[in-house]
Amino acid sequence: MTQQGLPFRTVGVVGLGLIGGSLARDLAALGIRVYGYDRDAAATDMAVAAGVVAEPLDASLAGLDKAELVIVAVPVSQLPGVLATAGRSVHWRLVTDVGSTKRAAIAAADACGIGERYVGSHPMAGDHLSGWTASRAGLFTGARVYLCPTRATAGEALALAHELWRVVGACPEVMGAAAHDHLVGYASHLPKLTSTALALALAQAGVHRKDLGRGGRDGTRLAEGSAEMWTDIVAENADVVLPALDALAAQVERLRAAIARRDSTAVQATFSAALAWCKSNDIAVAPPLPEE
Amino acid sequence: MTQQGLPFRTVGVVGLGLIGGSLARDLAALGIRVYGYDRDAAATDMAVAAGVVAEPLDASLAGLDKAELVIVAVPVSQLPGVLATAGRSVHWRLVTDVGSTKRAAIAAADACGIGERYVGSHPMAGDHLSGWTASRAGLFTGARVYLCPTRATAGEALALAHELWRVVGACPEVMGAAAHDHLVGYASHLPKLTSTALALALAQAGVHRKDLGRGGRDGTRLAEGSAEMWTDIVAENADVVLPALDALAAQVERLRAAIARRDSTAVQATFSAALAWCKSNDIAVAPPLPEE
Repeated sequence: MTQQGLPFRTVGVVGLGLIGGSLARDLAALGIRVYGYDRDAAATDMAVAAGVVAEPLDASLAGLDKAELVIVAVPVSQLPGVLATAGRSVHWRLVTDVGSTKRAAIAAADACGIGERYVGSHPMAGDHLSGWTASRAGLFTGARVYLCPTRATAGEALALAHELWRVVGACPEVMGAAAHDHLVGYASHLPKLTSTALALALAQAGVHRKDLGRGGRDGTRLAEGSAEMWTDIVAENADVVLPALDALAAQVERLRAAIARRDSTAVQATFSAALAWCKSNDIAVAPPLPEE
Repeated sequence: MTQQGLPFRTVGVVGLGLIGGSLARDLAALGIRVYGYDRDAAATDMAVAAGVVAEPLDASLAGLDKAELVIVAVPVSQLPGVLATAGRSVHWRLVTDVGSTKRAAIAAADACGIGERYVGSHPMAGDHLSGWTASRAGLFTGARVYLCPTRATAGEALALAHELWRVVGACPEVMGAAAHDHLVGYASHLPKLTSTALALALAQAGVHRKDLGRGGRDGTRLAEGSAEMWTDIVAENADVVLPALDALAAQVERLRAAIARRDSTAVQATFSAALAWCKSNDIAVAPPLPEE
């Protein structure tokens, strides 16, 4: 796509971490002018030095009003504060965030009176790494991005959100904020919490991560990642995450009971049901669960 | 290493799945003559057709007595039966298995009167795939292999076990069977059970695996793998696995309680402790756990 063919020419990125930094890299590479800010001045400096941020902003976010697009890529709990600081601008055609929960983001946008030009974004491109130094070009290639409109989102803003993510190679998919938060509470937040619990059980037993095989390393990889960011996420999505943890605990207890009573039939049925789910990517219904 | 320099020239492999098949491939490629058997005749045929098995055996295992080394690569619960069928041979210099638990294997070898020439092996090269079609050359390159002697193992057999694994590129490490079973109960079996419980909690919520991000896919990958093999493993190692599951359940409950009481300090301390463990590969003590 030529620079002339792009649907926008300027973008403000607040938060130059893994997601914000990677977006800024891709957009700058397309010839888009990037206004950038990070609370870590060193990150902003690196982004300028890399030729990614054309115009650094300070904490007042003065200058952000000139951007056509605003991308707020900060931990979920900081989004309302950033939106309040940024205020409003007639130049903005789209404001979006990249957080892992969307109900609170939508509510914050509505509260600031920018609901019409707001679309929440959630790129499924997280990683256990974080920060500007983890950011890289092409992070979003092929990644799904959930787009959650507010009740007031204008069609033009929603179309622009699709174009934003498509130019960096992602696959946008529109979903209501409540449905989104439920889905990711299970598909993303529960795996993170599970991995954390597993890591701590292993730590408690004195097992070192280097003692793990490939499977154990895979299973604990999600225990990495920013503690601060994840604390925000599970707090915002507690009403989904708590029953999800209950469902996990019930499955652990069921497996434990079957092993304890030496019921190999039930244990094997449990492993088989999990295996069937893993292989059922294209099946529209969940596999039946074994009965005790 | 030239064929002449190898410490043995013939090997019998019973069970041509992921582990047995991969071992047979590497040994055959070194010029070692492989006698092979699999209960699935098609697997044996494929191994012969691939030029890996030089002499196929039938279920009587007649002919296995000619091998210098015997490798039994079957699910843990079938090992005693295979050892009983195989009997004893004066030609055998080393008999080993490749199972994930070692106390029962050692006991089976002692019961068959072959403890002197027996060393249990546990290559940490498992995968979520299984069977001959999943086997491949080079599977053991760089992999740790735990070697568990019986009380009677002769030094020559233990030395030969080291040489067997070194010629296929693995890193042997001697450990007592009880210590081994405790370690893998946490480092390998608990991650498998955790992944299974997570997969079933997601299945129950109607989440599809394709909806998962990279972390969720990593966290559920271990739910794949042979249900039959894993049923055996957790049954053999139940006395380790049950308290390990209790430790996991306690960590899940602690996280749940912190989220439920909106205690962001405790939640963040929990994420930080898990993260610290992940990063503590070289530290000899587990990181302190957050107090509630």
